Amino acid sequence: MKKPLRGIIPPLVTPLIDNDTLDIDGLERLIEHTIAGGVSGLFILGTTGEFASLSYKVRNELIRRTCRIVDGRIPVLAGISDSAFTESLNLARTASESGADAVVLTPPYYFAAGQPELLEYLKRIMTGMPLPLFIYNMPAHTKVVFEPETVKAAASIPGIIGMKDSSSNLAYFKQVQYALRDRSDFSFLVGPEEFLSEFVLTGGHGGVNGGANMFPKLYVNLYTASVNRDFETISVLQQKVMQISSTIYKVGHYGSSYLKGVKCTLSILGICSDFMAEPFHRFREAERNKMVQLLEELNYRELL
Amino acid sequence: MKKPLRGIIPPLVTPLIDNDTLDIDGLERLIEHTIAGGVSGLFILGTTGEFASLSYKVRNELIRRTCRIVDGRIPVLAGISDSAFTESLNLARTASESGADAVVLTPPYYFAAGQPELLEYLKRIMTGMPLPLFIYNMPAHTKVVFEPETVKAAASIPGIIGMKDSSSNLAYFKQVQYALRDRSDFSFLVGPEEFLSEFVLTGGHGGVNGGANMFPKLYVNLYTASVNRDFETISVLQQKVMQISSTIYKVGHYGSSYLKGVKCTLSILGICSDFMAEPFHRFREAERNKMVQLLEELNYRELL
Amino acid sequence: MKKPLRGIIPPLVTPLIDNDTLDIDGLERLIEHTIAGGVSGLFILGTTGEFASLSYKVRNELIRRTCRIVDGRIPVLAGISDSAFTESLNLARTASESGADAVVLTPPYYFAAGQPELLEYLKRIMTGMPLPLFIYNMPAHTKVVFEPETVKAAASIPGIIGMKDSSSNLAYFKQVQYALRDRSDFSFLVGPEEFLSEFVLTGGHGGVNGGANMFPKLYVNLYTASVNRDFETISVLQQKVMQISSTIYKVGHYGSSYLKGVKCTLSILGICSDFMAEPFHRFREAERNKMVQLLEELNYRELL
Amino acid sequence: MKKPLRGIIPPLVTPLIDNDTLDIDGLERLIEHTIAGGVSGLFILGTTGEFASLSYKVRNELIRRTCRIVDGRIPVLAGISDSAFTESLNLARTASESGADAVVLTPPYYFAAGQPELLEYLKRIMTGMPLPLFIYNMPAHTKVVFEPETVKAAASIPGIIGMKDSSSNLAYFKQVQYALRDRSDFSFLVGPEEFLSEFVLTGGHGGVNGGANMFPKLYVNLYTASVNRDFETISVLQQKVMQISSTIYKVGHYGSSYLKGVKCTLSILGICSDFMAEPFHRFREAERNKMVQLLEELNYRELL
Repeated sequence: MKKPLRGIIPPLVTPLIDNDTLDIDGLERLIEHTIAGGVSGLFILGTTGEFASLSYKVRNELIRRTCRIVDGRIPVLAGISDSAFTESLNLARTASESGADAVVLTPPYYFAAGQPELLEYLKRIMTGMPLPLFIYNMPAHTKVVFEPETVKAAASIPGIIGMKDSSSNLAYFKQVQYALRDRSDFSFLVGPEEFLSEFVLTGGHGGVNGGANMFPKLYVNLYTASVNRDFETISVLQQKVMQISSTIYKVGHYGSSYLKGVKCTLSILGICSDFMAEPFHRFREAERNKMVQLLEELNYRELL
Repeated sequence: MKKPLRGIIPPLVTPLIDNDTLDIDGLERLIEHTIAGGVSGLFILGTTGEFASLSYKVRNELIRRTCRIVDGRIPVLAGISDSAFTESLNLARTASESGADAVVLTPPYYFAAGQPELLEYLKRIMTGMPLPLFIYNMPAHTKVVFEPETVKAAASIPGIIGMKDSSSNLAYFKQVQYALRDRSDFSFLVGPEEFLSEFVLTGGHGGVNGGANMFPKLYVNLYTASVNRDFETISVLQQKVMQISSTIYKVGHYGSSYLKGVKCTLSILGICSDFMAEPFHRFREAERNKMVQLLEELNYRELL
Repeated sequence: MKKPLRGIIPPLVTPLIDNDTLDIDGLERLIEHTIAGGVSGLFILGTTGEFASLSYKVRNELIRRTCRIVDGRIPVLAGISDSAFTESLNLARTASESGADAVVLTPPYYFAAGQPELLEYLKRIMTGMPLPLFIYNMPAHTKVVFEPETVKAAASIPGIIGMKDSSSNLAYFKQVQYALRDRSDFSFLVGPEEFLSEFVLTGGHGGVNGGANMFPKLYVNLYTASVNRDFETISVLQQKVMQISSTIYKVGHYGSSYLKGVKCTLSILGICSDFMAEPFHRFREAERNKMVQLLEELNYRELL
Repeated sequence: MKKPLRGIIPPLVTPLIDNDTLDIDGLERLIEHTIAGGVSGLFILGTTGEFASLSYKVRNELIRRTCRIVDGRIPVLAGISDSAFTESLNLARTASESGADAVVLTPPYYFAAGQPELLEYLKRIMTGMPLPLFIYNMPAHTKVVFEPETVKAAASIPGIIGMKDSSSNLAYFKQVQYALRDRSDFSFLVGPEEFLSEFVLTGGHGGVNGGANMFPKLYVNLYTASVNRDFETISVLQQKVMQISSTIYKVGHYGSSYLKGVKCTLSILGICSDFMAEPFHRFREAERNKMVQLLEELNYRELL
């Protein structure tokens, strides 16, 4: 895996047949769909992958199958976030044995830790970590931010090689990048696709954007246009991304609306099941019909 | 198990030798200590039990060993909270097979659900639930409150028999109790020990108070005095409880200060190890010395 | 004014004819209604009084008129909370000149201060304060909690004589009371009426309960029953209070629902206008009809 | 005033001699300093201007004096945010009479309103508004976000001409911009200077950046380089901005650290007093010495 890791790394949804069974055919189609779209890597078991809702059986199986299907064509990043230290290490071991390239870790997300506790936690977990690790900042779900000084200290722990930030707070992520301005090998990846382009234009390395599950080419092309400072293309593609963000992700209610929109679209595209792990449920018919209409308005076939 | 469940049900700490190994002797001493103190039940794998930091191996073992040690002398309530539906059910199965009397469940705590999603989740999980269930409201950690209307609807799902509220918001819990005023069989238990007495004086059934790990008699006596409306005794005992809350729980920093105080005290009392699961760590010598001093100021020997 | 101040001190709504004009007749009727109901004092310009939505002209006029109407029959507490130090002092001067007995102050509520900043602020403002002052803890609106240690330090500033807590967190308020256990002259008053009784049963001094605008006798009787430890009466009256809390306060949407319910009821009772200061608006006809029905279900005439 | 308003519009600090007295000479120097630096307008009485801590006397005087000193050379935007509708309109009247070009308004910030209430509030206040208005999104202080749909609806109210967003959430602001993609006359201005460049590169109109009080040229040059897509210059200047953000703004504690850093620097530069309105206080000697050192490390003279 190159350092830093650049490009689009979709946070893969987890195709499911039921609450505890992978949709394996769907997973295979999804992986081929995204690789064909030009992505630079795959991130499984992130928030978009519903990691926290999945049993360990499913999480382990997903890691193994994904690595087997990808078979080294692009890097695989496996989410190992867990409230339990030991279970994170167990997942990391599976990832390592399966041939994943790196792991990704949020703070423990039940009982919030203070910053010194968080740094100590990273130090300890890295002593047993078999793979390089990306820090995953996701305060909406974890209630904890990795302060820039904490990231700076963490970045000097051997094995910590990058960070994904899903805070949507670009002022914050610029501060983190500034704190690590001497670390040209450290990867900075951004979650929210709405400012992927802005992020890449001034030196960010890439995006872990949920929309790339559905339309990998769109995000890859936006990334490439941003690297090339091709503003005309950026303008056109960013409008598409914003249209997705403002329609597809807003059909449902509550925080899970975005997730439901992505999975429903993948089902409409014939890629995988839209079954969702508890406590969430797929759209019903009315919402699915609305989704079909929104996809038509998006001229989605052009994006495939 | 009587309905409603009344009295003091300590949320047991989980005695640990290291991050993935139970302190079994400590667990046995802790259980005997609390039973000897007159408690009405034991709640394992709650927040005080560091459930979210423990591997599944440890969680399952703790359920089994606790049930074996208790051996039917008092009810055992097993925490099955998890971000994954399937793992909650797996833990419930262990609890049932081990002879536990009930289980206790928070909302999934990574990706926050809306109220209708939460109610739906409870309905679905109860279809496979082998034991009666207490709802566990803990918004500081889960980011989600069970709205009174949600609790009211949940209480009519077969198998849901009570609620533990750790929100510290007594106005809220009174609203929940009012919504269920016709359900004399539904148990209302309160987490924060600072207002155990107030809660019981006007009809609350009991307390799931962390301090009862250390000084079960104190909390049992305060509960009994409250049931008996013996205000003189309440006044004396509540001062002790407030002294604990204002000293023992405030030595450390961050949210885990309370937990560290309880475990350190148990270690000083010779009951069990003060080892804490990641990401938290036991007090160092300076803090432990401070704890010894605070315990002396509390005349703690009188409380045993 | 006695120390501590005991009993029910309604946080008076501010009767308005339009956004910048007092409903003076309504104010007079409201004051007579509450005094006739046996209240121990009146608190004007609190959250229930919509203080933050009122112009300085109206705030000053309200202080003057209230003091004139009350004419020393019971203590008047005037809210002087403001984001600007100088304006708080200006209001305090009006209060002093008008004959008010004390003032009530939240933290500055736009730019949140740290605890040391807050204590320093209290010290400075008290050097020019012409009246005794109650601290007003209202974190839902101010984003700031007065930590128990801050209250303890503040209580030794000359002129600070009590505290109103509207956090709904009784564990917190018990900690504050414990920190000041040696200060028998310091008043502790609680905002949420849902646990007025519990608060008074174990030594709290009284309630600043919004419902006492509508039904002062109910709250005064509940207070008295609590002082007398008359549990039978407590049980009956608390059910009424909970019914109000669960119906009258829940007709509207958003945080202002409670306020709208109180003002609409006062209008239905013929006491004062239900006009609300911007950004809120009175109930429309459908909601008002619903309110009439809920009041009938409450048998509200018995409560007057 | 051109539509949209483009460029750097510093949110002026309010120079003070004491808590209720303007530092008029300082104000004049500050205005001349920023105009000489090439700014496109001035925004007084924003968060950086400590508006909420200032008495109405001072706020009104500041509006009048600023307009007189600027004397039409560049647009003046006057903050009229207040928790009271009437006081906002009073300030707007002063602004209009003094010759200001526009006003800027947050939501009422004590009692949080729902989105429909917020839209209604804007509609009503605009009926009496004598000047064009910018919406000011500042959720950290107001607890309320203007949802994209609310902004879209608000933008069709006559007189609402733009928006300043200080949420730091660029995904959000891109959604707002997308919702108003057909409104080429509507101004989008961003608060956080850390991503000024990113914002402008893809179509944002400018920055309301606190650092432009101290070093207006730096921010104007960064804005211009961003408009010109001069990435070499952007890279150099953004490093300076990030250095300021990571040093000057981090010397103090709590949320006010940024404000104290700006005012202290202006004092070191000889531009105006560093006196701060209550509840905040200027840096003490140790912190001021630290600031001098940080400014040296910044080679600040080059930036003037």
